[in-house]
Amino acid sequence: MSKSNVSVSLAVDAERLWRRHMDLAKIGATAKGGVNRQALTPEEARARVQLRDWAEARGFSTAIDAIGNLFFRREGTDPDAAPVVTGSHIDSQPTGGKFDGAFGVLAGLEVLEAVEDAGIVTKRPLEFVAWMNEEGGRFQPATMGSAVYAGKADFEEMLDVVDADGVKVRDALPDAIAATPGAAPRELGAPMAAYIEAHIEQGPLLEMAEKTVGVVTGIQGARWFAVEVLGEEAHAGTTPNAARKDALKAALAMINEMQALMEDPTDTLRFTIGRLEVSPGSPNTVPGRVFFTVDFRHPDLAVFTDKGDRISEICRRNAHGLPVTVKETYHVPPITFHEDVVGRVREAVNSLGYAHMDIISGALHDAKYMNDICPSAMIFVPCERGLSHNELENAAKDDLAAGTRVLAEALVALANA
Amino acid sequence: MSKSNVSVSLAVDAERLWRRHMDLAKIGATAKGGVNRQALTPEEARARVQLRDWAEARGFSTAIDAIGNLFFRREGTDPDAAPVVTGSHIDSQPTGGKFDGAFGVLAGLEVLEAVEDAGIVTKRPLEFVAWMNEEGGRFQPATMGSAVYAGKADFEEMLDVVDADGVKVRDALPDAIAATPGAAPRELGAPMAAYIEAHIEQGPLLEMAEKTVGVVTGIQGARWFAVEVLGEEAHAGTTPNAARKDALKAALAMINEMQALMEDPTDTLRFTIGRLEVSPGSPNTVPGRVFFTVDFRHPDLAVFTDKGDRISEICRRNAHGLPVTVKETYHVPPITFHEDVVGRVREAVNSLGYAHMDIISGALHDAKYMNDICPSAMIFVPCERGLSHNELENAAKDDLAAGTRVLAEALVALANA
Repeated sequence: MSKSNVSVSLAVDAERLWRRHMDLAKIGATAKGGVNRQALTPEEARARVQLRDWAEARGFSTAIDAIGNLFFRREGTDPDAAPVVTGSHIDSQPTGGKFDGAFGVLAGLEVLEAVEDAGIVTKRPLEFVAWMNEEGGRFQPATMGSAVYAGKADFEEMLDVVDADGVKVRDALPDAIAATPGAAPRELGAPMAAYIEAHIEQGPLLEMAEKTVGVVTGIQGARWFAVEVLGEEAHAGTTPNAARKDALKAALAMINEMQALMEDPTDTLRFTIGRLEVSPGSPNTVPGRVFFTVDFRHPDLAVFTDKGDRISEICRRNAHGLPVTVKETYHVPPITFHEDVVGRVREAVNSLGYAHMDIISGALHDAKYMNDICPSAMIFVPCERGLSHNELENAAKDDLAAGTRVLAEALVALANA
Repeated sequence: MSKSNVSVSLAVDAERLWRRHMDLAKIGATAKGGVNRQALTPEEARARVQLRDWAEARGFSTAIDAIGNLFFRREGTDPDAAPVVTGSHIDSQPTGGKFDGAFGVLAGLEVLEAVEDAGIVTKRPLEFVAWMNEEGGRFQPATMGSAVYAGKADFEEMLDVVDADGVKVRDALPDAIAATPGAAPRELGAPMAAYIEAHIEQGPLLEMAEKTVGVVTGIQGARWFAVEVLGEEAHAGTTPNAARKDALKAALAMINEMQALMEDPTDTLRFTIGRLEVSPGSPNTVPGRVFFTVDFRHPDLAVFTDKGDRISEICRRNAHGLPVTVKETYHVPPITFHEDVVGRVREAVNSLGYAHMDIISGALHDAKYMNDICPSAMIFVPCERGLSHNELENAAKDDLAAGTRVLAEALVALANA
């Protein structure tokens, strides 16, 4: 007996969802109200156990893959159908908040519980997943688990990644896998019918626009550059301009021209100089070396390519004859989520009547890699002042519930499509 | 029998002068050919002994004052006349060169020896001095000994100055004084008739102009500022410009306007941003704090005052509404040397026929404080590529001798005036 015409969103329990956030946040809680639950630590293992206990108490089954991605499943009527999947991550930054990642995982649990509570039958299985090491604070790169799952990062190479204390992923992973001893093995890259990830926005746009839900249409592209300028140390009092090789003055000329290039009246483009090091750093010595980073992001591939490609030439042209090296250290082009899945999210939010807007994700998420292997999308809810990667990170109970209701409607629709 | 009409410069021995530089440089020699002979260290004490041995071998007398300034004297015919003094310092930077300071002291010794060799009689006594702690690398402030001698720094306060290892001047000074046990006590501030200091230029101007001697007419003024800008850390991917409080962007706007203000077609003005620190320094985090220093120098009091006074306002105006603090941490107005003594130097260099030019000292020297208590001047000789405070610091034997001949003529003229 199919009950798929019952509205699953009515069964989403805002209080239960909030309580689960508060309970999960006790694991790795920091004094300032945040969370320190980095990937493959004992705290993250305890969070895995907690998730498993919650899921199995409702009869959902547990599975884990070789890189430690943890899946929970409610079966559908078609045993051969690929699952519709949601999820995010339970690892955190060293001084992270209660909602980044946790929301997407707990929203997934809440959807499966709501579906169960409402007695809804779906054709496809429904799953939620906690991806291994999304944050990348301890082990780089970030989004490690989803990248390996999607075949975009090499499994063996990732096992050899080392943290700041010299511990390899290879050595830390077994304890994480052992945390859920009854879990069935899950094949890396096993097919999914669709993927939707719920997440706090981690920016201020929804709050500024007074919207409850963001329909995420894509993830902006990001390019990182590392620039090193070599000058010559000289006495600040005795060396005239004509004889100076001032690495900082050259670097500032580069940054000025980049800032002009990156001006954007629509405030879509993101341009950040986050690190700038001046050597030797003595007040009365002309700088002999400057190192700085460029973080440039844009959702439009043409702008992403054109402006990004001009950075190196701008550095060379403003080097004042000094040696300059420009290395592109990161290059992830913008992605566009699948219109069918985005359409399901838009239908759900429209039918539920929440104030909403289309939005591009400023940050990278595991959904990027899922989009490579199945039709994917994301749902954002506001977070206070856009603050994230911060112990003060906060979100409203009602907004979390609203995002979860939209997620539930979209997932059930996809699971019965 | 006066022989003051004999030209002392003929008796200046270029080889002896050079050999003394090489011998003194063995004390505290570094592997890279430089010198590490910081103030009040055992190495500096050995250099004091070496100077005393050289001086007393020629019959010159030794005296030392309470702060460790070391004087050597050749008597004149008038026992009541104040001495004509030359000198510089034998302490060095941690990675200093063979000539900075050493030249002025050894030129003084060479002048006294040349006067002695030529059998010249002077009315006034001739002295050369090694000032204590000119460099200020170990104990701040720099030019400590001459400042105390001139009454511009408090003796007791200087005794309490502590180095990076917690050692006080008070504790390190006795060993330096004990290095020359037979030295007569010299009164702080005892009158001088005139003071001339010879020094390597520590800049490239003489070399660029192909001049052998610089007639130093003054020391440019120097002002240091410390600027702190407070922004707010934010995610580089998710935070639009409208919501950013980017401390670095504000700091760069300040520096840009300062650079425009400080443009000088005559290349007289010195403007340096030597230290610039960006926090937290993560490539994908909008900077929450920037600290930078400004080193601004000019020989003209009006420019020194006008442009320097505008720095604080420029910082405030470009702060983009962020809190900014501007502290002036150093303020030494320009000084002009005494026209009579500068005139004696100019006469000497003209009569000797060296290629020369007037020059303003870019760096501070002990002569600044002597100029407060007696008519003073300085003589510069070129150093290779203007390099100083560097183990590769170099100067030409003939240039050192030329400067010393000018010094000798000027000192003898003053001593018989």
